[in-house]
Amino acid sequence: MAHRPLACVILAAGKGTRMKSDLPKVLHRVAGRPMVGHVLAAVKTLDPDHVVVVVGPGMESVAAAVAPYPTAIQHEQRGTADAVRAAFGLLGGFTGDVVVLYGDTPLVTPDTLRAMVAARRRSDDPAVVVLGMRPDDPGAYGRLILNADGGLEKIVEYLDASGEERAVGLCNAGLMAFDGARMFDLIGSVGNDNAKSEFYLTDVVQIARRGGMACAVVEAAPAEVVGVNSRAELSEVERLIQRRLRKAAMDNGATLTDPDSTIFSVDTKLGRDVIVGAHVVFAGGVTVGDNVEIKSFCHLEQTRIETGATVGPYARLRPGAEIGPDAHIGNFVEIKNAVIEAGAKVNHLTYIGDARVGAKANIGAGTITCNYDGFGKHRTDIGAGAFIGSNSALVAPVTIGDGAIVGAGSVITTAVEADALVVARGAQKAYAGWAKRFRERKQSEKAKKA
Amino acid sequence: MAHRPLACVILAAGKGTRMKSDLPKVLHRVAGRPMVGHVLAAVKTLDPDHVVVVVGPGMESVAAAVAPYPTAIQHEQRGTADAVRAAFGLLGGFTGDVVVLYGDTPLVTPDTLRAMVAARRRSDDPAVVVLGMRPDDPGAYGRLILNADGGLEKIVEYLDASGEERAVGLCNAGLMAFDGARMFDLIGSVGNDNAKSEFYLTDVVQIARRGGMACAVVEAAPAEVVGVNSRAELSEVERLIQRRLRKAAMDNGATLTDPDSTIFSVDTKLGRDVIVGAHVVFAGGVTVGDNVEIKSFCHLEQTRIETGATVGPYARLRPGAEIGPDAHIGNFVEIKNAVIEAGAKVNHLTYIGDARVGAKANIGAGTITCNYDGFGKHRTDIGAGAFIGSNSALVAPVTIGDGAIVGAGSVITTAVEADALVVARGAQKAYAGWAKRFRERKQSEKAKKA
Amino acid sequence: MAHRPLACVILAAGKGTRMKSDLPKVLHRVAGRPMVGHVLAAVKTLDPDHVVVVVGPGMESVAAAVAPYPTAIQHEQRGTADAVRAAFGLLGGFTGDVVVLYGDTPLVTPDTLRAMVAARRRSDDPAVVVLGMRPDDPGAYGRLILNADGGLEKIVEYLDASGEERAVGLCNAGLMAFDGARMFDLIGSVGNDNAKSEFYLTDVVQIARRGGMACAVVEAAPAEVVGVNSRAELSEVERLIQRRLRKAAMDNGATLTDPDSTIFSVDTKLGRDVIVGAHVVFAGGVTVGDNVEIKSFCHLEQTRIETGATVGPYARLRPGAEIGPDAHIGNFVEIKNAVIEAGAKVNHLTYIGDARVGAKANIGAGTITCNYDGFGKHRTDIGAGAFIGSNSALVAPVTIGDGAIVGAGSVITTAVEADALVVARGAQKAYAGWAKRFRERKQSEKAKKA
Repeated sequence: MAHRPLACVILAAGKGTRMKSDLPKVLHRVAGRPMVGHVLAAVKTLDPDHVVVVVGPGMESVAAAVAPYPTAIQHEQRGTADAVRAAFGLLGGFTGDVVVLYGDTPLVTPDTLRAMVAARRRSDDPAVVVLGMRPDDPGAYGRLILNADGGLEKIVEYLDASGEERAVGLCNAGLMAFDGARMFDLIGSVGNDNAKSEFYLTDVVQIARRGGMACAVVEAAPAEVVGVNSRAELSEVERLIQRRLRKAAMDNGATLTDPDSTIFSVDTKLGRDVIVGAHVVFAGGVTVGDNVEIKSFCHLEQTRIETGATVGPYARLRPGAEIGPDAHIGNFVEIKNAVIEAGAKVNHLTYIGDARVGAKANIGAGTITCNYDGFGKHRTDIGAGAFIGSNSALVAPVTIGDGAIVGAGSVITTAVEADALVVARGAQKAYAGWAKRFRERKQSEKAKKA
Repeated sequence: MAHRPLACVILAAGKGTRMKSDLPKVLHRVAGRPMVGHVLAAVKTLDPDHVVVVVGPGMESVAAAVAPYPTAIQHEQRGTADAVRAAFGLLGGFTGDVVVLYGDTPLVTPDTLRAMVAARRRSDDPAVVVLGMRPDDPGAYGRLILNADGGLEKIVEYLDASGEERAVGLCNAGLMAFDGARMFDLIGSVGNDNAKSEFYLTDVVQIARRGGMACAVVEAAPAEVVGVNSRAELSEVERLIQRRLRKAAMDNGATLTDPDSTIFSVDTKLGRDVIVGAHVVFAGGVTVGDNVEIKSFCHLEQTRIETGATVGPYARLRPGAEIGPDAHIGNFVEIKNAVIEAGAKVNHLTYIGDARVGAKANIGAGTITCNYDGFGKHRTDIGAGAFIGSNSALVAPVTIGDGAIVGAGSVITTAVEADALVVARGAQKAYAGWAKRFRERKQSEKAKKA
Repeated sequence: MAHRPLACVILAAGKGTRMKSDLPKVLHRVAGRPMVGHVLAAVKTLDPDHVVVVVGPGMESVAAAVAPYPTAIQHEQRGTADAVRAAFGLLGGFTGDVVVLYGDTPLVTPDTLRAMVAARRRSDDPAVVVLGMRPDDPGAYGRLILNADGGLEKIVEYLDASGEERAVGLCNAGLMAFDGARMFDLIGSVGNDNAKSEFYLTDVVQIARRGGMACAVVEAAPAEVVGVNSRAELSEVERLIQRRLRKAAMDNGATLTDPDSTIFSVDTKLGRDVIVGAHVVFAGGVTVGDNVEIKSFCHLEQTRIETGATVGPYARLRPGAEIGPDAHIGNFVEIKNAVIEAGAKVNHLTYIGDARVGAKANIGAGTITCNYDGFGKHRTDIGAGAFIGSNSALVAPVTIGDGAIVGAGSVITTAVEADALVVARGAQKAYAGWAKRFRERKQSEKAKKA
């Protein structure tokens, strides 16, 4: 069978006034990714021949976010049909199938998009496929009225609907698929003779039916097509996607001690027999191997954790942290752009940045890699089996050899040889009775004041 | 129109036995404020001429909490009518309107109170206005029975109600408004001829109706009048008020990544395009400017954060922290009573207390301001553009000049001039092979023991 | 009345394939304890004469977890009746009562078990007692069909049930109690002539009834008998048990600011007027006295906190931490195997391990006890009223006398006498103008590169 080309048009020109934001609406994030990015990710699974994102004037930030996909500009907000028309220039002469999506409806699944395309290609060759849903409370949604053949007869706006039509539970979810060969004429025929003088995409069904063309409906779960017009709705969409991600992680063999307090990004990857404590945040780009325990209150981003490692509680792994097999990262520890090799331990109150910590090395509590001099970042290299005493400062660039020991409280500024002991601190001097005299003086001062 | 005086009586004498607490019930906190404080805040919006809080004997802590409003003492717990009578002494001769509220019903809104006062002042001049509600499950609440004119005919206790009366969904929510000119007689006529020998305020409706006076009902959402008798109910009220505060923050243009894990105080102020990560706690007195990002796991109290700043994750801002525009506060950082000026960075594992950090200064990881000598607190002043090396201790009182550099691991006890480098640490001494010999000795000791 | 002996058989041989885990299913934890441990804890309250846990081949880890209770091995998974038969060897000749439980149904309560035993011992002497429940949605559960006397007539599998039988809301919850004198014959008679060729314990009811024996039903709340076959169900059981534990803590007089974010272990003990902030995790073995405040983001394990102490936010108390009366533990503080005596303060960024901190001692920010030398752990002893300056390292074994003062930034390696001042740090050296020249050089290097 010959390849039938596919185009996707994503409407993303809405200003999102109710978001009260300087950021274009579709760039607001859910699960760590801009909403329009979720829509693009779903669209990519269809391997479309063309993708056009319709934006408003001045929305260069959206264009940058969706690149390399091209954007078309809808100069005035004159309705959804007008928005699709803005994409016509980039689709000129296209005769394959066209799916129209919304940049603020980020939960739509690849399965649903595939079902829409399949319906468009059915033997009755519908000109238009409309996505429907059956919400618990149909409220003021437009209703999809079917004909005797099960085809779509019309979309009735709630305000125009009869009592009988309002009793219909099947509602318009907004997304549509078109036969490209007929789409340009259909959408071109949409008028704006209505209260708001807008061009509504929903009018194409009536136009197609009048022209004797078939229309069809594909149904999706209402949760897939929740749209976002306010921050409260943004948080509702976040909640729905988190629920999906949590379920997927558990189905894959991870234990989430308290799923509702585990925050995922769309790209989080957890292995088998991973245990995640309560109150853990996975920002983008985290991959976790098997048998890893991530204790409560961890924050992980752009990080890889290998099999058998233990992390947290209160560990912050920042971009470029790579935690080796069976390594231990403890509490109040920050790791950034650093490789912690197999079996190494960084257990308490430590900052490791721009560094390598060799296998089985032990980093004492309160150790700091001084990687920044106010101008550039420098590297610290700690050898295998090295022991860094507590409260040490390692001033980068600096190398600690394999098996070396750094005495507690040292400031290390030059290279330490393998197997050496190095100490850099002042001698301990005692002043007998000084503390007692100090207290007595302070107390007598207090007494005088009082 | 002449000003008609208004008095509010808040009943707060309940012992709250089921709270199992040494603290009087109305002092238990929700959203960071004692319950009676919420009621007072709502009452204040009415700008009343008199406020009286009725407390039990020995409740000096409640009297202190509600000062400067006066308290009246109900000496024995003999019912709600008796409690209001305790306030009569302070209201002697008052002929305006009187609203009676409950100190353990903290969610009542100003709108509802205004509606009650307005109803009291309607042309039919009702002697009593009762607040009603329609809970999903009316259960054992008293029912409000209306007459043909829509006025309130009687309040029927559930146990005394007929089947028909129990089918009524309108229930007694407890709050009342009175015409002061008639209140003293009405409440004075309430008897205690009932199973518990208590004087019930609800009896006034029957008394008023028998005297030919009109009574009225104003309705409120059930969530407004949830009362607290146990810690579980306290947590339910907390949940309801948090929901309100979260919605308001989102409506105002803040993104709450995971609203259910964001804990607000009633006085939290968030600007536009503020992003709040998961698991953030706003204790009292926090004001946040526009375009601020507050990452996960922050705890903020009595703090101001200016436009464009970034805070957290794991930042604790304590009373008196002022974070300037575009400043960065990072992980495991505690700031107390300190001004962090524009663009300064305090990124890791640091305690800044009783200090100023000048504009664009950079505070290295592990820096500590030693502000306490066991007797008093002293100030640290860090100049603009200064660079404090990691793991330094700044022993207050001390001044670091503009543009000065403090070497890593230094203990600074005397003033540092502008643009100077200062270092205070021991020299690095190496002992070649020492670490290897140490390990061999330890391992041979272990072997001998085994 | 003579003691009638009791035996409990816990079926724990299930592989739990859907868990996708290398850990046997019944060892997965809820509220900090393996599921089978919850069942054993409930069983222990009955003070049974015999307990047998039936495991699968190779499940030595389960046998170790339930020791000293004996285990019997079910060699092949051939149904629940077959599993109970595996226990026959250890119960040979037993004629008391036998309760059969499931290792993956951890929420069953002692009250329910007692009710089952009591029902078994009723005057009609039922051979079998089946635990029933009435779930909101009976779905595909087996139905319990009663006879005219209120006895149990049969258990009908959903697939075999008539429409009338499906309309019955009383469902089989799985647990059973037997008269031991008849159990061996009854279970021995169960056949496997069914689709899966398995021996089903539910068949005993039919067999008993055919033999003219009485059978009985005891009802439990559906939440008690939720079974676990997947990680999602594990999290559901965790949610249910957390709800129980939160309610119990509040009923006992603790305030949970945000109950849904408080994670308990089954053995957590909280005193009266304890206040727990949002986002607190109680791992196993925590006991908290009266009037303690535990602020947000704390993680506590195997720890005792005495009356009046304040802990957190962000305090991690590890096994062996003992926090004395009125002590203060602050933010980013880790305490392990250490006694903090009355009124002592450990307020910021500190690690105290293997130590004693004397009464009213003050530990400065950034203090580290260096308890580990790479081979063994050593103790630090800090006397009453001592003052440890910020950023100090105490190299164990070491003793700080009562009332001694350690200067900020010191590394202490030898004993400090009572009332002495001790300082161990480098002298402060300044290089005027160096910082300015450094910046100018760096900026000119940058300019050249550009």
